[in-house]
Amino acid sequence: MNFASDNAFGAHPAVLRALNDCNGGAVLGYGADPVTARAEAAIRDLLEAPQAFVRFVSTGTAANALVCAQLCPPGGRIYCHRDAHIETSECGAPEFFSHGAKLVTLPGAAGRMDPEDLAEALRIGAGGGLNGGRNAMVSITNATEWGTIHDPAQVAALARIAHAAGLPLHMDGARFANAVAALGCSAADLTWRAGVDVLCLGGTKNGAMAAEAVVFFDPDMAEGFDYRRKQTGHVVSKQRYLAAQMLALAEGGLWLSLAGRANALAARLAKALQAAGGTLLAPVQSNAVFATIPAKAHARALAAGAVYHLWPDKSAEGLDPVPLRLVTSWDTDEADVDAFVAILADGGLRS
Amino acid sequence: MNFASDNAFGAHPAVLRALNDCNGGAVLGYGADPVTARAEAAIRDLLEAPQAFVRFVSTGTAANALVCAQLCPPGGRIYCHRDAHIETSECGAPEFFSHGAKLVTLPGAAGRMDPEDLAEALRIGAGGGLNGGRNAMVSITNATEWGTIHDPAQVAALARIAHAAGLPLHMDGARFANAVAALGCSAADLTWRAGVDVLCLGGTKNGAMAAEAVVFFDPDMAEGFDYRRKQTGHVVSKQRYLAAQMLALAEGGLWLSLAGRANALAARLAKALQAAGGTLLAPVQSNAVFATIPAKAHARALAAGAVYHLWPDKSAEGLDPVPLRLVTSWDTDEADVDAFVAILADGGLRS
Amino acid sequence: MNFASDNAFGAHPAVLRALNDCNGGAVLGYGADPVTARAEAAIRDLLEAPQAFVRFVSTGTAANALVCAQLCPPGGRIYCHRDAHIETSECGAPEFFSHGAKLVTLPGAAGRMDPEDLAEALRIGAGGGLNGGRNAMVSITNATEWGTIHDPAQVAALARIAHAAGLPLHMDGARFANAVAALGCSAADLTWRAGVDVLCLGGTKNGAMAAEAVVFFDPDMAEGFDYRRKQTGHVVSKQRYLAAQMLALAEGGLWLSLAGRANALAARLAKALQAAGGTLLAPVQSNAVFATIPAKAHARALAAGAVYHLWPDKSAEGLDPVPLRLVTSWDTDEADVDAFVAILADGGLRS
Amino acid sequence: MNFASDNAFGAHPAVLRALNDCNGGAVLGYGADPVTARAEAAIRDLLEAPQAFVRFVSTGTAANALVCAQLCPPGGRIYCHRDAHIETSECGAPEFFSHGAKLVTLPGAAGRMDPEDLAEALRIGAGGGLNGGRNAMVSITNATEWGTIHDPAQVAALARIAHAAGLPLHMDGARFANAVAALGCSAADLTWRAGVDVLCLGGTKNGAMAAEAVVFFDPDMAEGFDYRRKQTGHVVSKQRYLAAQMLALAEGGLWLSLAGRANALAARLAKALQAAGGTLLAPVQSNAVFATIPAKAHARALAAGAVYHLWPDKSAEGLDPVPLRLVTSWDTDEADVDAFVAILADGGLRS
Repeated sequence: MNFASDNAFGAHPAVLRALNDCNGGAVLGYGADPVTARAEAAIRDLLEAPQAFVRFVSTGTAANALVCAQLCPPGGRIYCHRDAHIETSECGAPEFFSHGAKLVTLPGAAGRMDPEDLAEALRIGAGGGLNGGRNAMVSITNATEWGTIHDPAQVAALARIAHAAGLPLHMDGARFANAVAALGCSAADLTWRAGVDVLCLGGTKNGAMAAEAVVFFDPDMAEGFDYRRKQTGHVVSKQRYLAAQMLALAEGGLWLSLAGRANALAARLAKALQAAGGTLLAPVQSNAVFATIPAKAHARALAAGAVYHLWPDKSAEGLDPVPLRLVTSWDTDEADVDAFVAILADGGLRS
Repeated sequence: MNFASDNAFGAHPAVLRALNDCNGGAVLGYGADPVTARAEAAIRDLLEAPQAFVRFVSTGTAANALVCAQLCPPGGRIYCHRDAHIETSECGAPEFFSHGAKLVTLPGAAGRMDPEDLAEALRIGAGGGLNGGRNAMVSITNATEWGTIHDPAQVAALARIAHAAGLPLHMDGARFANAVAALGCSAADLTWRAGVDVLCLGGTKNGAMAAEAVVFFDPDMAEGFDYRRKQTGHVVSKQRYLAAQMLALAEGGLWLSLAGRANALAARLAKALQAAGGTLLAPVQSNAVFATIPAKAHARALAAGAVYHLWPDKSAEGLDPVPLRLVTSWDTDEADVDAFVAILADGGLRS
Repeated sequence: MNFASDNAFGAHPAVLRALNDCNGGAVLGYGADPVTARAEAAIRDLLEAPQAFVRFVSTGTAANALVCAQLCPPGGRIYCHRDAHIETSECGAPEFFSHGAKLVTLPGAAGRMDPEDLAEALRIGAGGGLNGGRNAMVSITNATEWGTIHDPAQVAALARIAHAAGLPLHMDGARFANAVAALGCSAADLTWRAGVDVLCLGGTKNGAMAAEAVVFFDPDMAEGFDYRRKQTGHVVSKQRYLAAQMLALAEGGLWLSLAGRANALAARLAKALQAAGGTLLAPVQSNAVFATIPAKAHARALAAGAVYHLWPDKSAEGLDPVPLRLVTSWDTDEADVDAFVAILADGGLRS
Repeated sequence: MNFASDNAFGAHPAVLRALNDCNGGAVLGYGADPVTARAEAAIRDLLEAPQAFVRFVSTGTAANALVCAQLCPPGGRIYCHRDAHIETSECGAPEFFSHGAKLVTLPGAAGRMDPEDLAEALRIGAGGGLNGGRNAMVSITNATEWGTIHDPAQVAALARIAHAAGLPLHMDGARFANAVAALGCSAADLTWRAGVDVLCLGGTKNGAMAAEAVVFFDPDMAEGFDYRRKQTGHVVSKQRYLAAQMLALAEGGLWLSLAGRANALAARLAKALQAAGGTLLAPVQSNAVFATIPAKAHARALAAGAVYHLWPDKSAEGLDPVPLRLVTSWDTDEADVDAFVAILADGGLRS
């Protein structure tokens, strides 16, 4: 009963198969191999973006931070939600890669910035002069850190504001698959058609071992990107293995079926939590559930061996109701969900 | 009638005289000259800190950012007020010099963090793991960006919390002279005796051309600082001129008399603004006044040639009352203050 | 007949098996999983260094550059051979990670610095004052970029000089397995017993997909290293897969048998080249051969489909004899070596 | 008898007067003052470059390193002489500001690169692929670190090669005045007309306290330069004082007369050294003399109180003849030169 994180789970068998399948023989290194070429093409197809510049790296932090560096000139300011992964969970990597970009964070319900707040923040930032630095980019996460989703219209609303200020829009898509699966829209509708300029398309949480794609829809924006990747140690010599993972996920829509499964399990958990007297802290739209539950239910779950995080951290221990976060993955065991639901339901009746 | 900023004004005649006085002959460069030795000693005396490590640089941004770099290891988090100069007005220099430190900002009335807020933020930050980075330092400004002052007890309260978390306390003292002059305490009481570990002691706003001192009260904290200073281009070859400025200010208490004069003029402005129907936005404790005044009074002042900033920026134009910031300096003309007071008073009677 | 590079080849079946074997279930991320613990222990065992601090990253450039950053304070100077990988082939990563360390390069036959040259360079560097920066570390590669080897005595000679200057010694061991296999010594003899302070132990060229170990023999030297790793995007969330690769190589001495095989094939190539009238440019001590061969022999090899690099680059095309580099790997086909030998021998008789 | 360095001497009286003259009143800060505007115009006039982008900073290291950062994209390589100040004397500032640019150094007699060597180095560098990084700029110093001069034809020869490779040419002109004074050419002939793209025009060694100009002849190359300047702490708030120094030097050709005087004194020293049995190590073309002199002459000079550097460092002590460096400045005492000449001549007769 592990609901701690989607990166607690392993790699999909198709991903591992792909590693084996591409293993034979000698090929050129550093991305000049045929698997990389096929995988880049597959990502372009998936996004209906035949001109896009696609590269693979091993971690989401590298993907995001490289993009921040690419889009931020000296004195640059990056606008994002205050709970954005680039702000809270990358140990200063965006600032490090960009040599000192300033992250300007905005509040916003359930992980999404309000377009009007963004517009106002950009207006203020534009007046900061040399001392304040200059507006450089806007970044959103989809699905968000709160498990919610920006739909194409919401993305477009933020993109319009960014573009009106002359700034590119970056989407941290560590859980992009979950967003697309939930919306049932096309990946293109949720990205470049809605105004996204650069996408970090996550593979790791979706079922890869360690693979992320960085996609610049306008290749001109990617000038020199490969040098950045190399200078930060993110060019893998035997790159076929990185590419093969993304290819396996992209082929036959595996990425969407895996994400859809995780989403469905999260929805079941959400329902069970509510039935047990819990309250959702954010709408459950992808594979994460934020909720408070009665302390008794929490105690029963722990006693039964359930693993998950209190929210926002351990200091929530002892509260009643107790806030928590549950995350499902492509490999979350259906039986674990059944068991968790049963424990909660059981308690719901008795307590 | 210029109340725009204290750095709009020039250098005190004693500072210029000091440049002339040290001009003759050949001396060793890069700080190995006798004027530098005397100036460093003078700063140590001023602070009653005979062991302190003292260095001079040309700008306050350099001083602060070098200290941030010195105190922040990789993944470091800097805690400061959300209106701190290092956050709002240094174009990302602290992040640049430190290679990606994360500034964690806190609210707080009139430019001062609440000790309990700081303690809670440090507690949360300490639990962030690798992803969140690690707590590295606390920074306060004195006098603050709102013209208010941390008195020794307030400094000590914040220092205790920083130290309890194992962190050093930095004081951005771009207007340190104004704080000491206002409090009438000793510089030592306001710094190391209250727990300050590193002080950036501003000369520029106090009456120098361009000179700031960086003071590490524990010289062990300054290991390698000179290499940082050189590698960032902040070691001046003919350093005697930098040192002479600070020496001129330190000698005979000039720094305090200049600051005291500026403070007194600000107090007069504050009184006049209130008499004219204005409302102070923060207590006036040093040489800056933040207030709203009736739009009519603002119009009269502008018409009479007064120069100052709307607050926080030009977007305040058109408001009634209109928020503004006035800053006085060592060289603000008493007659200008008289004139401004008269204009306001005049309007106060008529309107 | 691919002799272009050892990273042109794939991963050993045992490595891929290890990925499958560790795939099931949910574990903690970011290195807190049992496979990582076992792999770190295996590396410590392999090096007979029970206290060593061990971490895994995906690329050799990341490993080396992170170590440079860890060991270089501001203004630091790194001493290495002028053909060192950190100087020639990492796109400035050591300078980037370390925020401006200066690489001071020395000549030296066949990829090895002369201890006396190093001593003299360190002496000069120590006198550079602030302007010159300060000596920070010495780095050697083993096996070297020229396919030669530093034996324990040679390592110790350089280590003594580094340590006498108060500097740590780093060993770039991208092909460390080849060195140990060739020498038949213990890994400990070639590293910490000879004075190496930090080892980058390469897995990728040895038969992994993408995995390198960074080993600090004195864990105190590694303070904060994990934050560096995270801030540079080199902490993989599902780290078991990175660890499993290194574990598979370490177990049962696979790393040495793979390297030994590559070395043996290189020796055969060297012999054949010499028999065909070629001249070795450096002693062949590991898995790389640098030689000049008659242009006719080169032409025959190309015609037969052999793939390798001219040396130092394509500008050598047209020379007679023509300088070239051949590299063998764990997966180089014995039949390819046979064929290459035959082609050369054939030509040797006829021409 | 101080011949240690031109930065051992003070500021010219006209420079100090200029500080006094601009001291009154309140002006806008950060470069928006009238003195800055006049000084920028004066530099443009001096260079006959009406469109040039001109900015002032306090140190030569800052000037050079900012330019390196401006011209070097990620993975950039900078080509310069191995004795260039940016390589030997800036403590890694170019690497720091540029986030890891690689300095590629070339030998060359008397501080000047050979155009053919440069062409060959650029050719090799262009083939380095991702691992090697990309060629980004060429930097020369004029007058050089050896006191020699690139004349317009020599500059043009190097510029042609840089431009043919698509690279800009930077001139470190810390002693640019000495070069122009020696050549008797126009500043334009020695810079943009010869192909220089960016000039760092030194004021400090020429007679300022601390002031350098950075000049981009094509303002498009300077995009965002002010943000870099601010983010590195090199925007002075009361900038009029920085500008006034440069203005004083530019006005009435003072910069050239000061440099010409220093050059003439160096020529006298060179003559005297040769007469005393010394040998010049490089042609004496500006204000520095590199020579070996008989140990006895050295001993007499020391005994008489002469101050200068052994070359390249103290380890030359005890050699016979002994290599040394003498530098003259705008303020070197004619009587000191007379005395030094007499000491040498005296010894010349007796020994």
